[in-house]
Amino acid sequence: MPTYRLHVAYDGAPYHGFARQKELTTVQGTIEDALATVLRTPVLSTGAGRTDAGVHALGQVMSFTVGTPLEGVPALQRRLNALCGPTIAVLELAEAPAGFDARFSAASRTYEYAIFTRQVHDPFSRHVAWHHAPPGPGHDLDAGAMHEAAQALLGTHDFSSFGRVPEGATPVRNVLAISVERTEDLVVIRVTANAFIQQMVRSIVGTLVKVGEGDHPPGWVAEVLEARDRAAAGPVAPPHGLFLVEVDYPEELVRA
Amino acid sequence: MPTYRLHVAYDGAPYHGFARQKELTTVQGTIEDALATVLRTPVLSTGAGRTDAGVHALGQVMSFTVGTPLEGVPALQRRLNALCGPTIAVLELAEAPAGFDARFSAASRTYEYAIFTRQVHDPFSRHVAWHHAPPGPGHDLDAGAMHEAAQALLGTHDFSSFGRVPEGATPVRNVLAISVERTEDLVVIRVTANAFIQQMVRSIVGTLVKVGEGDHPPGWVAEVLEARDRAAAGPVAPPHGLFLVEVDYPEELVRA
Repeated sequence: MPTYRLHVAYDGAPYHGFARQKELTTVQGTIEDALATVLRTPVLSTGAGRTDAGVHALGQVMSFTVGTPLEGVPALQRRLNALCGPTIAVLELAEAPAGFDARFSAASRTYEYAIFTRQVHDPFSRHVAWHHAPPGPGHDLDAGAMHEAAQALLGTHDFSSFGRVPEGATPVRNVLAISVERTEDLVVIRVTANAFIQQMVRSIVGTLVKVGEGDHPPGWVAEVLEARDRAAAGPVAPPHGLFLVEVDYPEELVRA
Repeated sequence: MPTYRLHVAYDGAPYHGFARQKELTTVQGTIEDALATVLRTPVLSTGAGRTDAGVHALGQVMSFTVGTPLEGVPALQRRLNALCGPTIAVLELAEAPAGFDARFSAASRTYEYAIFTRQVHDPFSRHVAWHHAPPGPGHDLDAGAMHEAAQALLGTHDFSSFGRVPEGATPVRNVLAISVERTEDLVVIRVTANAFIQQMVRSIVGTLVKVGEGDHPPGWVAEVLEARDRAAAGPVAPPHGLFLVEVDYPEELVRA
């Protein structure tokens, strides 16, 4: 079966998350509807990251198969973009190796979370960063302490404290890289893992912010992890600061 | 009379321009209403740049006078920000030298205009850049030609071809600096002048784009300027790519 890969960016604000749902407008549903219109046949797709309602993507990857090879791919991509509207952009539509599956072939996903820490809000980043100002001068988020604390999450762990898993599913994930960096008024948390449980990045962010605010020492994050209990973690940070930025695949699966 | 200066950033989308108007929501009207609430007295302000509907600002400057010196300025600034809402940010509220007037004391204004030139639209810059894609591969906007063409506008000229002036008012302005630079998919036009006539930057942008597209050689812009006729210029670029970025004042007027 001819297999195709889509690279997609979207503003998550108007969507009830990525994953197709009945009766609700979602990113996957919008793109599948556009594919069905353009290809004149129903299309079922898979996506690398099931982003929650309000979460954005710069580098979501999707895949689908069709009965016969597509012709005029650049024109199809233009028509998809016209149909999907201003909040979704199909950055690439290309043939993929047979058997490529955006979800199951992925080796890792990378998310970034942006926190805007200036005392005064910013009219231009308000949809793409969490405005979390310090309580007063001299109380800036300590990004160094947050970075140090985050390193406890590296490696393979039971992440039950940091998100939801369906009954019977495993809460074990492998965090491959995690960093916290400040550039002026912006603190960015970047996490790469083989996969994530639901709300995992936002729960990590809410927990690290407690360290950055000085409520807990960096070593506290290891205790939260060991507790395997959501009540031990910090609050879940809001969705509009979160971006799925990149999905990595084994090299042999990237090009058809 | 104690005089105060405000530095203000705003997303122009929800406003009928900067300047106060009866019955319409404007930036100046919103800020004056907030000042009146916080100071418990009506306040009339002046602003450095009368930005049109939909035009943004990163560095608008306003001034106003009051009967007696303000007390608790940081708290007043916080209350103003809470009242003005997410699309307006009061970045600074500070005392200014007596006689300071944001409009009449200004030596120059600087505007930037952003054009996003990628074939596929971008969900995240759509409110702050004009998406103007080339008609096809190999037809990218020629920023070098646009920059060369723009230099004809430097200096003191009658800018009637590039905007509107009220009956009887002078269309003469002095352009102090103008540049066009490309960074990947973004072309930024930056113009500094003593002052601007209405729609001047957007009209310059629309004209330079005609050069960037190869419809006219760079030397054409001098002809447009000499024509003193709006019909000679290119179309007016849309407002959402335009930002008032900076207002400069004589050094002795900056601090009280």
